[in-house]
Amino acid sequence: MSYPINRRRFLVTTAAAGTAAATVQLTPGRAAAQDGELPDFASFKTPDDVMVWTGNTIETERGAQGGSITGLSSLFVRNNLPAPPQSITDDPDGWVIEIDGVANPGSMTLGDIKRLGVITVSSVLQCSGNGRAFFGHETSGTQWSVGAAGNVVWTGVPLNAVIAAMGGPADGANFITGTGGEEIPAGLDPNTIMVERSIPIGALDQAMIAFEVNGEPLPVAHGGPARMVTPGYFGVNNVKYVKKVALTAEESQAKIQQSGYRVREVGAGGAPDQPSMYEMVVKSWITTPLVDVQSGKILIEGVAMGGVSTVTGVEVSTDGGATWQAADFTGPDTGPFSWRPFALMADMPAGQYELASRATNEAGDTQPEDFPPNHRGYGHNGWRDHAVLVTVV
Amino acid sequence: MSYPINRRRFLVTTAAAGTAAATVQLTPGRAAAQDGELPDFASFKTPDDVMVWTGNTIETERGAQGGSITGLSSLFVRNNLPAPPQSITDDPDGWVIEIDGVANPGSMTLGDIKRLGVITVSSVLQCSGNGRAFFGHETSGTQWSVGAAGNVVWTGVPLNAVIAAMGGPADGANFITGTGGEEIPAGLDPNTIMVERSIPIGALDQAMIAFEVNGEPLPVAHGGPARMVTPGYFGVNNVKYVKKVALTAEESQAKIQQSGYRVREVGAGGAPDQPSMYEMVVKSWITTPLVDVQSGKILIEGVAMGGVSTVTGVEVSTDGGATWQAADFTGPDTGPFSWRPFALMADMPAGQYELASRATNEAGDTQPEDFPPNHRGYGHNGWRDHAVLVTVV
Repeated sequence: MSYPINRRRFLVTTAAAGTAAATVQLTPGRAAAQDGELPDFASFKTPDDVMVWTGNTIETERGAQGGSITGLSSLFVRNNLPAPPQSITDDPDGWVIEIDGVANPGSMTLGDIKRLGVITVSSVLQCSGNGRAFFGHETSGTQWSVGAAGNVVWTGVPLNAVIAAMGGPADGANFITGTGGEEIPAGLDPNTIMVERSIPIGALDQAMIAFEVNGEPLPVAHGGPARMVTPGYFGVNNVKYVKKVALTAEESQAKIQQSGYRVREVGAGGAPDQPSMYEMVVKSWITTPLVDVQSGKILIEGVAMGGVSTVTGVEVSTDGGATWQAADFTGPDTGPFSWRPFALMADMPAGQYELASRATNEAGDTQPEDFPPNHRGYGHNGWRDHAVLVTVV
Repeated sequence: MSYPINRRRFLVTTAAAGTAAATVQLTPGRAAAQDGELPDFASFKTPDDVMVWTGNTIETERGAQGGSITGLSSLFVRNNLPAPPQSITDDPDGWVIEIDGVANPGSMTLGDIKRLGVITVSSVLQCSGNGRAFFGHETSGTQWSVGAAGNVVWTGVPLNAVIAAMGGPADGANFITGTGGEEIPAGLDPNTIMVERSIPIGALDQAMIAFEVNGEPLPVAHGGPARMVTPGYFGVNNVKYVKKVALTAEESQAKIQQSGYRVREVGAGGAPDQPSMYEMVVKSWITTPLVDVQSGKILIEGVAMGGVSTVTGVEVSTDGGATWQAADFTGPDTGPFSWRPFALMADMPAGQYELASRATNEAGDTQPEDFPPNHRGYGHNGWRDHAVLVTVV
């Protein structure tokens, strides 16, 4: 989204967690990408709309978010391993995916899979660590604020159709396990670095083998030629370059599953008995204004998602949560996994304002004011830390 | 959409209008674009997904259609005049639009307009002449088959908000008149070539100043930096590079309005008392299979639109309309102006099949079997001519 305040650097003020409002830079030390800074596999991103943290982690500028759909030119990128070469997308229909844990295990090409029936689903893609920058404790990992999220339209084949084509599930299947196609350097134990994620088998209701995003063939930066996408599930579960999908009795033995992406107390190590980052939750944030504005009628805009239940409403506060007004959705309802842009026109004389938003979904969940700390800084959806301080002059 | 049969040339068979089924090439003399054939302003198109008719007319391959959303890499292009230079999109927010026929006429920048409130709408963009190739009589103009149409997501500002910001409509306004920003060569009467279209003022309910498509800033090929978009209205009314919007008592005096895009008998000249190409109508077509396929369970897919009323159902026939079965929608309902992909799994032993589709909208309109000829070949939505002949082996 290109909004008035977009496409240039800005310093923004935000309310700090659980304390009096403090002026901080939203993404400390980072600003819009510099010329030539984008890695090759993400060279199609618009530099002014993204911040490049590393060659594998690119965040969308908060001011470049805001519409119903996030263009690929601003969509965030998060790879756990270096991406495969561009040539991996040269022949999408020839890409082979091994299917296991079914009555008749075997391999199918993406071309074969497409013949099973194509669906389109709109959904939020969000990194587990989105909002990590807002936690009060020190966290390792990319200090995402709100920009490790986007709303996109996936086109692909229901995993259920693939499973059915292979004779149906084998007995005892509890998980869907997807394996990424990244090259594992020789001599390393694959389990230490491979991208292999297991999600509960109930997710078969929405899991798909996606081959397009926003109507475009999946680029390598977003997992092309084929990605296992489960709408409603955090990013890490949407395995890029998927080369194997198995219905399994147990979770993957990979570190990324066993100890990674586990929610635990600050200071604790990751372990399989802790909750894994599976389903997303209700969340919203304001995308404009982010900088000082002229007094008068001011349009406050943002995005709101329901997680795995349709977002039904969003309230906006201009006084740090003392009072709330219902905002209007400004884009269509595209299902439970999708976000919707919202807007509220507010009369704002000169002064300081703490702008906050609070979404509710069909299941009745509402964003909490505060979100408790966890070791790795996952899943923050507290509305206060997502608020922005704006001076109206 | 990249389907199995996509991304290579194909010869396809189609049922000819009102006659026994005949084998013809869908787009006579044309096939996927050659390397280097794309004009500069459309260089981001995927050559295999489009056919280049002229430097200003590019059609989407039928096999590259099919999903909920049409990617910009395959979306058709139709310009009535040569496109402005790329530099026109260098500073989108500085683009000036004159607003007339309001209480306080004047100019606004796109940046100012964005501050009035942003909406997102999904809608079909379709050229008035889409389907022209299917008419039985000789027609001038690009011989589009089905590929002068796509379904995209527009982001922009409601024209109503712009009008309100300028004090509301002036008295006696009957039309919304949009003027394109193309350069008119010196010495020519502008009315003879300028792109200026008037639509009934009732369209204010949905007209918008769009500045993004599919989440991306509008490229020059699709009207950037700003386009007047009226969801539900044929392409020509969606004025590119819009430099003026006026509420007017009379229709534009431009030829494109007075005599162009008028529906009249074959052989008759265009005149203002004939129907203008305004609102689109219910329509559907099959996008796969288009070529010979192996016998067995065959997935028939296509797209269906309601025009200005939500598409509610689509039937598929494999026997040229003798019998029909209800197909399933495979993408979300994104409103009255949008198309939805559909699918039907059919058991098809070896033989010849005439595959047809027939859509119905909420208003109760159903596609006719045949569509009467009109001089310029506008607005064809007859299901028989859109059918495809396929041999199952």
